[in-house]
Amino acid sequence: MIVIVEIMPKPGILDPQGKAVNQALHQLGYNEVNEVKVGKIIRLDIDETDHETAIAKAEDMAVRLLHNPNVESFRVVLPEEIDNTVEEKLQ
Amino acid sequence: MIVIVEIMPKPGILDPQGKAVNQALHQLGYNEVNEVKVGKIIRLDIDETDHETAIAKAEDMAVRLLHNPNVESFRVVLPEEIDNTVEEKLQ
Repeated sequence: MIVIVEIMPKPGILDPQGKAVNQALHQLGYNEVNEVKVGKIIRLDIDETDHETAIAKAEDMAVRLLHNPNVESFRVVLPEEIDNTVEEKLQ
Repeated sequence: MIVIVEIMPKPGILDPQGKAVNQALHQLGYNEVNEVKVGKIIRLDIDETDHETAIAKAEDMAVRLLHNPNVESFRVVLPEEIDNTVEEKLQ
């Protein structure tokens, strides 16, 4: 089963990568961009068939290894939830 | 408006960060993990009220700057789609 851990910098935490991307976008003329935050997607393929167990395990992994609680927040999602692209939704 | 660009390594492309995370998880005893892929989330705050225009702009930014087409694929999603955490869905 595929489980996704999304990790983002906490609000107020300096995000130099986001600032760099924002600056680069402005240099390309995208002046409508106000703010950019860069986070991580960790896609786990786990030997587990039960959704709730898989999610609980991924949360455990996020707490113990994947995210830095000082500067990052995380959430666990199943790919079904994020598998509909916007293009499909808009059709 | 917030628009999310999700960037993942293309299938078959070496993902050393994913391999490192997989190895670390196994060292912590998570032997049920088969594969790990690590990608990026780029959260754009854009001055734009129309969904389709915001998505089109984000796709343009992804093509011109954010993703490396040689080794990465991307998709653009609106946060509404990925804002329901699994915990909420399961309730």
